[in-house]
Amino acid sequence: MSATAPPQLPDAFGRYGDEVEGELRRALEGRELPLYDMLRYHFGWRDEHGGPGPGRSGKGLRPVLCLLASDAVHGIHASALPAAAAVELVHNFSLVHDDIQDNDAERHHRPTVWRVFGRAQAINAGTAMYALASLALGRLEEHGVGQERRLAAVELMHDSCLRLLEGQFLDLDFEKRTDVDVTDYLAMVRGKTGALLGCAAAMGALLGGPEPRAEPDAAARAHATAAFRKLGEELGLAFQIRDDMLGIWGDASITGKPVGADISARKKSLPVVDAWQRAEGPQRRELAEAYAAPRIDPATRDRVLGILDGLGAEARARELAERHRERALAAIADLTLDDAARQDLEAFAAFLTERDH
Amino acid sequence: MSATAPPQLPDAFGRYGDEVEGELRRALEGRELPLYDMLRYHFGWRDEHGGPGPGRSGKGLRPVLCLLASDAVHGIHASALPAAAAVELVHNFSLVHDDIQDNDAERHHRPTVWRVFGRAQAINAGTAMYALASLALGRLEEHGVGQERRLAAVELMHDSCLRLLEGQFLDLDFEKRTDVDVTDYLAMVRGKTGALLGCAAAMGALLGGPEPRAEPDAAARAHATAAFRKLGEELGLAFQIRDDMLGIWGDASITGKPVGADISARKKSLPVVDAWQRAEGPQRRELAEAYAAPRIDPATRDRVLGILDGLGAEARARELAERHRERALAAIADLTLDDAARQDLEAFAAFLTERDH
Repeated sequence: MSATAPPQLPDAFGRYGDEVEGELRRALEGRELPLYDMLRYHFGWRDEHGGPGPGRSGKGLRPVLCLLASDAVHGIHASALPAAAAVELVHNFSLVHDDIQDNDAERHHRPTVWRVFGRAQAINAGTAMYALASLALGRLEEHGVGQERRLAAVELMHDSCLRLLEGQFLDLDFEKRTDVDVTDYLAMVRGKTGALLGCAAAMGALLGGPEPRAEPDAAARAHATAAFRKLGEELGLAFQIRDDMLGIWGDASITGKPVGADISARKKSLPVVDAWQRAEGPQRRELAEAYAAPRIDPATRDRVLGILDGLGAEARARELAERHRERALAAIADLTLDDAARQDLEAFAAFLTERDH
Repeated sequence: MSATAPPQLPDAFGRYGDEVEGELRRALEGRELPLYDMLRYHFGWRDEHGGPGPGRSGKGLRPVLCLLASDAVHGIHASALPAAAAVELVHNFSLVHDDIQDNDAERHHRPTVWRVFGRAQAINAGTAMYALASLALGRLEEHGVGQERRLAAVELMHDSCLRLLEGQFLDLDFEKRTDVDVTDYLAMVRGKTGALLGCAAAMGALLGGPEPRAEPDAAARAHATAAFRKLGEELGLAFQIRDDMLGIWGDASITGKPVGADISARKKSLPVVDAWQRAEGPQRRELAEAYAAPRIDPATRDRVLGILDGLGAEARARELAERHRERALAAIADLTLDDAARQDLEAFAAFLTERDH
C-alpha cells in the first residue's frame, strides 16, 4: 500500500499502558452486580462465563493522546489519569452501542457484547459505561484538581459525547442516502471520531499539573485546551481517513480483512464518497447501481475498485489525511512545549496517518 | 379498587408545569440536527413528520418533586430548574431505551421512538438525552449556584443513573428467572424507580436558595440532601408498587388496560412475586406453570387472579406501598420546613401511593 515502511506503534503506548489499565479497573472497582460482568467481558478481563479473559485489545489511542497532551503542557500526567480513563470508557460505550446498531457479531475476534448477553442488556452495558465515565471524573478531586477545572472537564466530556452521537446519527443516516458528498462525510467524522479525540487531547491540556494561583495562567490554559482540542479533532479526521483506506486497500495479512472489504460491505467511506462525487457518465451510473443493490458481489467490488483506481482515490485520500495531520500539528505550533513531548505528539500523529493496522 | 375517592393530581403539578416545560425546551434550544427531531417527537412537541405534536403526556413527577423539595428547604426553586429538567431528561432517556428493550410499540397512545425511527437511531436518541441532561446542569451557573454544589449535583445525577441502570438490568434479568422474591423485587425497584426520584428530591434540597457563606450551612444542606434523597427513593417504591397494583386491578376505563393486563403480559410485578413466594402445594405449581408458558391465556389469567385474591395480594401490596410512603415522610420529619411545603410533599406522597392512573 505504501512504498516506505509504516511507522511502529509509538513508545507512548507502552509507557502509559499500565497506568491507563489500572485507572480503568479502578473505575469498575467494587461494582459487583452481573451488569458489570458485561463491561469486564467487553474489556477482555473476563470471558463470557466469568473466567479470565484474554486482556484488552484496543490500542487505547484516546487515553494515550490525553496523557501525551498532559505531559506536553505540564510535564506531568498523573492528575489527567481519571480523564484518560473517562474518555476510554466513553469510546467503549460507543463501540458497544455501535455493534448493536451495525449488527456486528465480532470485535477483536471475540463475539460482541450483544451477541453474548443479548441486545437489551447490551444497551444497558453501553450506557453504564457512559455513567461510569462521568463518575470517573470524580477522581480528579483526589489528584488535587480544583473545582473550576473539574467542572470544565465535565462540560467538555458531555459536549463531546453529544457531538459523537451526532456523528453516529449521521453515519447511520448515510446508509440510507445516495447523495452523501465529502463535506457531509467530514462533518460526520468530525463528530463520530474527531469529537472524542479532541476531548481526550483537551482534557490532557486542561488537567495536568498543579493548580495555578493567578488569573493569567487560566487564560493560557484555556488557549492550550482549545489548541489541543483542535489537534485531537483534526487527528481524528486523519485517523478515520486512514482507517477508510485500510478498509479498502489494507494488507489482508495485517488487517485480517480481504482486499476491498469495505466495498463489499457497502460502506460509504471517504474514497467511495470522493469517487462518487467526481465520477461522470457510465462510471457514475455503475457506482450508483453497485451501491443501490443490497449486496456487492466480488465482480462488482472489483469494478468499483477499478473506478476508484482510475480516479486516483487512494492518493487523494492520502493527501486529505496528510492535510488534517498538518492542521493538527499547526494547531499547537505556537505553544511552548518541551521538545521531547512535541516529538512524541508528532510520532503519534504520524502513526495515526500512516499506520498499516 | 378502593372504597375512598382517589386523590387528585396535587396543585404542584400545575404550579410548576410551565417552568419545567420552558427549561426542557431550553435544553434542546439551538440543536437543529435531525437527531434532535427524535427527542422532540418523544416529548410530543413534534409529530413523526416534523409537524406540530400533541404536547407532553408524562406527569413530570420527577421535576415536580425536585421543585417541591427546593421550595420546602429554601422557599425558592428557580435555581433548581436546570436540575428538574436534567432529571426529566434522564427519565426520558430511560423510557426510550426501555421501549427498545421491552419491544413496546406504543407509549401514551403514540408509536414509540424506535417504531418511528428504527432501533439503531432510537439508541442514539436515548443516549443523546442523557448527554443533554448532563449539559443541562451547566445552566446552574447562570442561577448563581457555586462550584461545590454544581459538582455535587453532577455526582448525584450520574450515581443515580448508574443505579437506575442496575435496576433496569435486574428487571430484564428477572424475566428469565423463576426464583425472584420480594427482596429481589424491592432491590430492582429501588434502582429502576427509586434512584431517580431520590436524585430529583435530593437535587431540590441541594440546589434551591442562595449560596451559603458559612460552613454550618453546608452540613445542614448535606443532611437535608440525604434526607430528601431517602424520601424520593422510598416514594419511588410506593409509586412502583401502586403502579403494579394498577396493572392488575386498575379500573380499565381509567388506565386504558384490561383487568389483569400485567398478568397476561407475564410481568413479575410485586403482587405476583409476593403470591408466588407465599403460595404452597397446587397453587404454587399452578403459578409456576402459568409463568413458565410463553403466553398466559384469559382462563389462566383468571386462575392466577383467583390465587392472588385468595392470598390477599392486593391488601398486602397496599400495605407495603403505605409502609414506604411512611418511611419517605419519616425521612424528612426532623427537618425544619414551611408548613405549606410539608403539606405539598404529603399530598404528593399520597397521590403516588393512592392514585388510580
